[in-house]
Amino acid sequence: MTKMEKKKPEHVATHGFPAKDGELTVGGIKISQLADRVGSTPFYAYDRALISERIAEMRKYLPPQVKLHFAMKANPMPAVVHHMSHIVDGLDLASAGEMAIALDTGMDPALISFAGPGKTSQELSQAIAAGVLINMESFAEMENIARISKEQDIVAKVAIRVNPDFELKSSGMKMGGGPQQFGVDSEEVPAMLKRVAKLDLDFIGFHIFSGSQNLNESSLLETQEKALNLVLSLSKHAPNMPKKVNIGGGFGIPYFPGDKPLSLQILGNGLSKLLQKFQNELPDTEVVLELGRYMVGESGVYVTKVIDKKTSRGEVYLITDGGMHHHLAASGNFGQLIRKNYPVAIANRMDISEKEKVNIVGCLCTPLDRLGDKMNLPQAEIGDYVVLFQSGAYGLSASPTAFLGHPAPYEVLV
Amino acid sequence: MTKMEKKKPEHVATHGFPAKDGELTVGGIKISQLADRVGSTPFYAYDRALISERIAEMRKYLPPQVKLHFAMKANPMPAVVHHMSHIVDGLDLASAGEMAIALDTGMDPALISFAGPGKTSQELSQAIAAGVLINMESFAEMENIARISKEQDIVAKVAIRVNPDFELKSSGMKMGGGPQQFGVDSEEVPAMLKRVAKLDLDFIGFHIFSGSQNLNESSLLETQEKALNLVLSLSKHAPNMPKKVNIGGGFGIPYFPGDKPLSLQILGNGLSKLLQKFQNELPDTEVVLELGRYMVGESGVYVTKVIDKKTSRGEVYLITDGGMHHHLAASGNFGQLIRKNYPVAIANRMDISEKEKVNIVGCLCTPLDRLGDKMNLPQAEIGDYVVLFQSGAYGLSASPTAFLGHPAPYEVLV
Repeated sequence: MTKMEKKKPEHVATHGFPAKDGELTVGGIKISQLADRVGSTPFYAYDRALISERIAEMRKYLPPQVKLHFAMKANPMPAVVHHMSHIVDGLDLASAGEMAIALDTGMDPALISFAGPGKTSQELSQAIAAGVLINMESFAEMENIARISKEQDIVAKVAIRVNPDFELKSSGMKMGGGPQQFGVDSEEVPAMLKRVAKLDLDFIGFHIFSGSQNLNESSLLETQEKALNLVLSLSKHAPNMPKKVNIGGGFGIPYFPGDKPLSLQILGNGLSKLLQKFQNELPDTEVVLELGRYMVGESGVYVTKVIDKKTSRGEVYLITDGGMHHHLAASGNFGQLIRKNYPVAIANRMDISEKEKVNIVGCLCTPLDRLGDKMNLPQAEIGDYVVLFQSGAYGLSASPTAFLGHPAPYEVLV
Repeated sequence: MTKMEKKKPEHVATHGFPAKDGELTVGGIKISQLADRVGSTPFYAYDRALISERIAEMRKYLPPQVKLHFAMKANPMPAVVHHMSHIVDGLDLASAGEMAIALDTGMDPALISFAGPGKTSQELSQAIAAGVLINMESFAEMENIARISKEQDIVAKVAIRVNPDFELKSSGMKMGGGPQQFGVDSEEVPAMLKRVAKLDLDFIGFHIFSGSQNLNESSLLETQEKALNLVLSLSKHAPNMPKKVNIGGGFGIPYFPGDKPLSLQILGNGLSKLLQKFQNELPDTEVVLELGRYMVGESGVYVTKVIDKKTSRGEVYLITDGGMHHHLAASGNFGQLIRKNYPVAIANRMDISEKEKVNIVGCLCTPLDRLGDKMNLPQAEIGDYVVLFQSGAYGLSASPTAFLGHPAPYEVLV
């Protein structure tokens, strides 16, 4: 070859959903059988064994003293949260609604934490009564917690959510550095700690979250190092040594062509080294990683059926019974600047090698409703199953299900 | 002045929500009183008098023979649809769920039409039984309708949704021209009409929709002209003269700084001229304009309360109890490439002239949850009401209400 051949970036191969008799399976069940069991398409299916495997893999590579918390906003399906409650060390939530689901699992409230920039007095009151840890996001919220705490005669467990002066580089979303609606600017934390000491509050520690959906190990480790150093310097001002510090998560998963999965080994080795220094200074402080997407994102699929197939001016369209109302992220309307394709399969044609270039759309009467653009897939017909992978996080709950009045899809944990 | 001064683009002044004693009103009721009546914030409030005014204004300027249909996907709140059913000439819907709401208004099913690229057999069966007009989107759908029609022993009313070979220029969203999931390519329509003639179907006419959210009168008129010409040429192949042609809508409303409202006078005069030629050839064909956003978008507001106020590294944040889970479009995640500010007011500080530059965010734990960036507004405090205008269309129903587990907002028609 005299000329460099430029290969088009491709999706990372999905695993965990092997084909049986040419048909994709979830938890060992063929998609068509699962559809019959659910009773209708579209639906989301999550694989509990794959979720457990992912947690086991994290435990294998990450330092054993690190606690793993599940950020349930990524997938608040009660059965999923219940499953997680048996295999993680804590649950992190963002509303009273999520708290109800978390408490119903039976998990110790002391292992549950509540963050969010706009907690109402009602929510704070519920959290104090439940005994969950509250990540305080402002001075005003702190005073409100102290007031309600006194009213209820319960000493509230609190941590300070810190807006650091650094960001998580090359992140899908930045949540730290510069001005933010989240947490208290790190330079104001010493003053806040002084006030915490005067109030009747149980100071547990810090919460530092700086970004999400990151696929770069060195950016993640650099940020973890900065977070741990920030905790060391802020702890000098604390009324007591922190019992817990939540240094966030941010681990991404490969969604789009060219994305590469993270190496847990690199992350684990790096974090081990960082913890040596940290634990010399704060040996009794628990370090928590809070992860949502990374724990469940790759264990779920979204299943739709082809309702119509047509060719318009040379392009083939598979029109499905699903769409952006069920899976906003896959339509490219959930924080993305440019729409890119999620990995997709025609579930009942896994052994067909002949490919066809198709556009996959939903049933909504809007051009926003696109699930796949110009994808090479086995030739599909009406009645076939179109499956979107990497759909276990920020899928159904992050979608406008009422848009255009179609029924909401089911969710199953297999 | 020797140098040109460049004025920053501003929002068009909102009207219809006058202040009383320094407080914004909806339907004559102060926001704080309305909040008490609703019982909680956030909520959407729609003003029935403003909706009626808008329809009256359209009737005043648009040619009297044009029929006005409401595309209920823009706002499917049952009370709104019911109100519309008394003042428009028809309802257009996109799902069996919307059909149930439309039929409950008591409107004659013959005045209701159903469009959507992925109608299931179940939905088609319901539509045929109800007697609504079905806009056929493909050959396969036509055959399916004919089959169900025979089973039910009811002659289905059908129109062909045409994918034209032109687009609506300078539109927020294009829905025609080139390859599309919507409708049947215009060059294939003659063949489809031939097949319609052979099937036991009641051919009513055509539906041509080419784009939406357009603020350019000449683009709209140019597209209407092309649509009417396309109907004239396609009608030559029809089994009978079309009784109705729906030439779409696409009328936009001013959302963002610099947007200018449409002139109904220009649109009305232009369309009158176009109709003269059209009606010479097809005197008995009803011309329908289908509008959603334009009819209701400016008559609604989204009301939230300030839960916290804080300064982070020099920027002021108003943290509200609302957010992107209620109003995805205002957060810039509903088809927009770049987030821009909707017009906003601090409802209980309408007579305060001193301004402060603020960011308005929601209560969700995600940086996507932004409702206003760097806006100059009267100085607001915790407990104040933040109101987003232009929120009567594609608001609640187009938002991921379950995201992060907060309660869904109420809607009121005042």
